[in-house]
Amino acid sequence: MKEVSKLMDFRADIKVVDATLRDGGLVNDFRFSDSFVKDLYNANLRSGVDYMEFGYRADKEMFNVDDFGPCKFCDDDYLYSIVGENNTDLKIAIMADVGRCNYKQDIHDRSESPVDLIRVATYLHQIPTAVDMIEDAKNKGYEVSCNIMAISTARESDISAALDILGRSSVDVFYIVDSFGSLYPEQIARMADLYGEFAAKYNKKLGIHAHDNQHLAFANTIEAVGDGVDWLDATYSAMGRGAGNCAMELLLGFLKNPKYNIYPVLQFIEKHMNKLKEGGAVWGYDLQYLMTGLLNQHPRTAIQFTKDGRNDYSEFYKEIISQE
Amino acid sequence: MKEVSKLMDFRADIKVVDATLRDGGLVNDFRFSDSFVKDLYNANLRSGVDYMEFGYRADKEMFNVDDFGPCKFCDDDYLYSIVGENNTDLKIAIMADVGRCNYKQDIHDRSESPVDLIRVATYLHQIPTAVDMIEDAKNKGYEVSCNIMAISTARESDISAALDILGRSSVDVFYIVDSFGSLYPEQIARMADLYGEFAAKYNKKLGIHAHDNQHLAFANTIEAVGDGVDWLDATYSAMGRGAGNCAMELLLGFLKNPKYNIYPVLQFIEKHMNKLKEGGAVWGYDLQYLMTGLLNQHPRTAIQFTKDGRNDYSEFYKEIISQE
Repeated sequence: MKEVSKLMDFRADIKVVDATLRDGGLVNDFRFSDSFVKDLYNANLRSGVDYMEFGYRADKEMFNVDDFGPCKFCDDDYLYSIVGENNTDLKIAIMADVGRCNYKQDIHDRSESPVDLIRVATYLHQIPTAVDMIEDAKNKGYEVSCNIMAISTARESDISAALDILGRSSVDVFYIVDSFGSLYPEQIARMADLYGEFAAKYNKKLGIHAHDNQHLAFANTIEAVGDGVDWLDATYSAMGRGAGNCAMELLLGFLKNPKYNIYPVLQFIEKHMNKLKEGGAVWGYDLQYLMTGLLNQHPRTAIQFTKDGRNDYSEFYKEIISQE
Repeated sequence: MKEVSKLMDFRADIKVVDATLRDGGLVNDFRFSDSFVKDLYNANLRSGVDYMEFGYRADKEMFNVDDFGPCKFCDDDYLYSIVGENNTDLKIAIMADVGRCNYKQDIHDRSESPVDLIRVATYLHQIPTAVDMIEDAKNKGYEVSCNIMAISTARESDISAALDILGRSSVDVFYIVDSFGSLYPEQIARMADLYGEFAAKYNKKLGIHAHDNQHLAFANTIEAVGDGVDWLDATYSAMGRGAGNCAMELLLGFLKNPKYNIYPVLQFIEKHMNKLKEGGAVWGYDLQYLMTGLLNQHPRTAIQFTKDGRNDYSEFYKEIISQE
């Protein structure tokens, strides 16, 4: 059993990362108003959040700018228009997907950007490119983290091999990512153990990014806190793809570091999040996400089920088990 | 770290208790149609649920029968009308609240009732009456469990004293009840440890009844499974007072005993539960329940906030912290 003090005291190394615009943007094609983004920035400042992820730096030769809001691309000019010189304790992050970001061209020197942290997202079969992106970002002056996605369908031996390669790179943080929302807390503990071996060997930090398919995003995140994971992703009202993520309001309620404050989060949700839902953005736990999580499948079929306005859950279950 | 086998294998001692009509009845004054109740009984039969709790055996001299549906009182005649002689593996349970049940008069001999299990619910200060109810039910031939409520505001020494008294009674199962939805998985593990000492000493079983204020009802329930708790309460679509309970669909998805089957649960939810919500029944996680859970308060203020159709969360937060 873990130390009692974990619940009463706090670990100063914890970093809270607000991923609302990035993972939430997958729900509404990043169509957030400037007032939403500015209010979110201010709420994060006031609530003591450590990093705010603004979205992706997607390749404009692959994605049409008219099809998405600005957080799909996170131009430095756009970010400056929101955060100015950002002379605050809140650091700015963007995500760069392997294969969807023209990083050599589109990620500029840190001195010309308000961004502090580049989050490289990769599948296991793309690790060498991820390493190239990590070194590129590091050379340009950024902090760098790496998310290995879809690990719930990977072998531990492959994950170990990837962590050993990443360990020798300049990356600062390894992220445990439960892309399909299929992991239970005990499995998170085991993953933290595995990732922790390589983090200790190569002097890296650990992070977690959870999904709520089985209603466990928050539970898995606080399990990870007890297992030595320091970087914690959360989103306001759990907004994120499919079943959504770990809710910021739950996480800040749990963390005992006096620098965190739940109140600005409540104010922001009250002002903006229900309005977003009323405007048609749909996310959050529902049976179709539970089912893909249980079966350890990508949630794309469940997202389509949601988009189609279906509620014939038992028919959907038969469809997806026949794909096994 | 717990054994890996816990996630792959199963413990045959696990009992799943469907509390939909009882805890869910608190949401809609027990106004369930006969077809709802019959379909639920059949869904439980087909999904391998072990016990089905039909509601309370409330005292008709205290509560007006016109103000509630039949599951508030669970007359034996009513139960017979749903389950007949119940020649099945599914056992029937009712709850008897200390101070709200005229047990000597209203709980009849087991030979005259389709009920198998009497669930006595008590606060710490009512333990002697609870013991009297336990012995009364036991003498009449029933299995008996006991829920000690509101333990998150109790001292461990008081809980220990209560468990020592209950241990010497004829009760079969001690239930860990997180009435306010304020406990984290690590605290559940500690509670299971404390309750487990007395369960071992007096040869009793352990149960858990969780609430979802902090989105942890399922996580706390499966934490308890790993800690040796055998009796697990759940409700369809997590229907229950305030933030609701551990969802049956999540629990049956998790349990690996081949006798459990999630499919009839999905079918029932599809047919009945969304309709219930559309009909005006409101339950489930929302910020007001998070707040009372965080502050370890009774959810009654949050329930009122919900009934009043309010969404000024930050104002509510100020109201309840000023009551501290």
